[in-house]
Amino acid sequence: MTVVFGVDIGGTQTKLGAFSPDGTLLQKWSIPTDLSDNGTRILPHVADEIRRYLLENGIPLQGVLGIGLGIPGPVDDHGYVRTCVNLHWTDFRPALEMRRCLPDLPVSSPIAAGNDANVAALGEYARGGGAGSDSMMMVTLGTGVGGGVILGGKILGGAHGLAGEIGHIATNAHAARDCECGNRGCINECSSATGIVAYTGDLLRENPAPSALRAYPALTAEIVCNCAKEGDELALSALRTCMEPLGIGLAHFSHAIDPQVYVIGGGVSHAGEFLVALIRKAYEAHMHLTGGRGAEIRLATLGNDAGIIGACMLALTERGAGA
Amino acid sequence: MTVVFGVDIGGTQTKLGAFSPDGTLLQKWSIPTDLSDNGTRILPHVADEIRRYLLENGIPLQGVLGIGLGIPGPVDDHGYVRTCVNLHWTDFRPALEMRRCLPDLPVSSPIAAGNDANVAALGEYARGGGAGSDSMMMVTLGTGVGGGVILGGKILGGAHGLAGEIGHIATNAHAARDCECGNRGCINECSSATGIVAYTGDLLRENPAPSALRAYPALTAEIVCNCAKEGDELALSALRTCMEPLGIGLAHFSHAIDPQVYVIGGGVSHAGEFLVALIRKAYEAHMHLTGGRGAEIRLATLGNDAGIIGACMLALTERGAGA
Repeated sequence: MTVVFGVDIGGTQTKLGAFSPDGTLLQKWSIPTDLSDNGTRILPHVADEIRRYLLENGIPLQGVLGIGLGIPGPVDDHGYVRTCVNLHWTDFRPALEMRRCLPDLPVSSPIAAGNDANVAALGEYARGGGAGSDSMMMVTLGTGVGGGVILGGKILGGAHGLAGEIGHIATNAHAARDCECGNRGCINECSSATGIVAYTGDLLRENPAPSALRAYPALTAEIVCNCAKEGDELALSALRTCMEPLGIGLAHFSHAIDPQVYVIGGGVSHAGEFLVALIRKAYEAHMHLTGGRGAEIRLATLGNDAGIIGACMLALTERGAGA
Repeated sequence: MTVVFGVDIGGTQTKLGAFSPDGTLLQKWSIPTDLSDNGTRILPHVADEIRRYLLENGIPLQGVLGIGLGIPGPVDDHGYVRTCVNLHWTDFRPALEMRRCLPDLPVSSPIAAGNDANVAALGEYARGGGAGSDSMMMVTLGTGVGGGVILGGKILGGAHGLAGEIGHIATNAHAARDCECGNRGCINECSSATGIVAYTGDLLRENPAPSALRAYPALTAEIVCNCAKEGDELALSALRTCMEPLGIGLAHFSHAIDPQVYVIGGGVSHAGEFLVALIRKAYEAHMHLTGGRGAEIRLATLGNDAGIIGACMLALTERGAGA
């Protein structure tokens, strides 16, 4: 019996998935990420979990076909991590370290590491919202805005690990404040969950119109999306303001990479087709060269499993940088 | 003896190059592009030129290892041309038609067609300003602004032939007029030779300051660049205004594709390192996420030969869409 592991290492939780060689999820579970001792315990803990799973399922280490790792920070095309603030890693090769923790793993079984947003994009490409496309970009609308590009089945990392970083291009000419990166007008600052809450708060203060939003002592992006869906004009106006720069950014990306499909994921995407329609409208209004035509915009479908599924795919296809 | 042909078909002139199998240029020449009969004579004329060259050099048609074609319009990844306004082609497969004109060409010799800007980018990547890089984007500053992206030695065409179309992203918040595409703020409208002349004219009318430019009855981009180089404040100011949106656009592209190198070509690039320095300054000022670091920006080196060299490379590597 053989198995592939997909591991999604986060700053607080590490998700693990055991997959059959055809990519079917057999079991998934999560453990706290142990950040003590400068993050040196993280991968030994993952190795312990892998050994435990194998023991419980009567699979020898020789039955492990590969291990994929999603890392919450920049990973270059050679699997090298200069700095990963979230995990306290510096000058680190996660795949190499993982292999040191599992010395009996066959050398023919690849260990591959990639940036978590890129790895999740690979998951959505293989099994989720991007399935069936040739080229795809995933945009994650969470606390911040991240992105990952898949071309010809492979993650586009870029020469400096910057590829797909749509959150930090400045398309918002009416930004109310600077982005955390220091720039003004970044998509990250307005289209994220944080941005939606901030811009809606601004609008509620500036505009005396009645709104269901005023009943809430504290706003969340979910509340804003729900009120907008139910026809609240002020919520809808705030959401349009927040999604317009993202639509412009996708138009810019179509003139750069021209993917077949955009997949929208992350917590904010739970607002569903309603949100996608707002993004699509802004996008198509800026596709002048093609008369409004361009990429399909779809919802992500894998939710929190995108990371482990993508990590499994990374291992299965040795698309990442192995050790 | 064997030979490869690189053909760069333009709206008025068609350039031909005969190359040895290692890509060395043996001979180049050009012929007028015959647009009569809806452009149906263009490829038969190219075939005549190829036969003439072979006859004069005592090479049989069996010695032709491949033919690459650069087309002045969109070509999809399968070599299909929906419309090429410049050549009066509709619903056309240039590589297939070229093979019909040379029925005795061995089937093992590829004929490949690509968009001329992309093909020129491939030339600069293989033999010019982008040589030695893994990933490159070429920006052509001519009458308009075009672009071509090379990733892993291959042209990135995109799902809709839009990849690398940097000219039509809108990064100019202070645009004086609409772009020909109908959008406002396009790089094409301000960073092209046309744009430099228009914006300099605007500035000369608005600003009464003395300038060497006022001595010229008619401006050209070359005159503006030369005056700026010689320290004319007004010319320098106009050029900064025109290059700033391009620098921002390159920063956007670095957050999308993240190429290792940008290569600046086209007529305007004859202004040399002086111009590149202006573009670089604007670019680095918008690379906040990396503290100003990013891709190298270099000058193109192949001039008008980029097209035939790139077309030769396209054939040699069968990277285009063959017939």
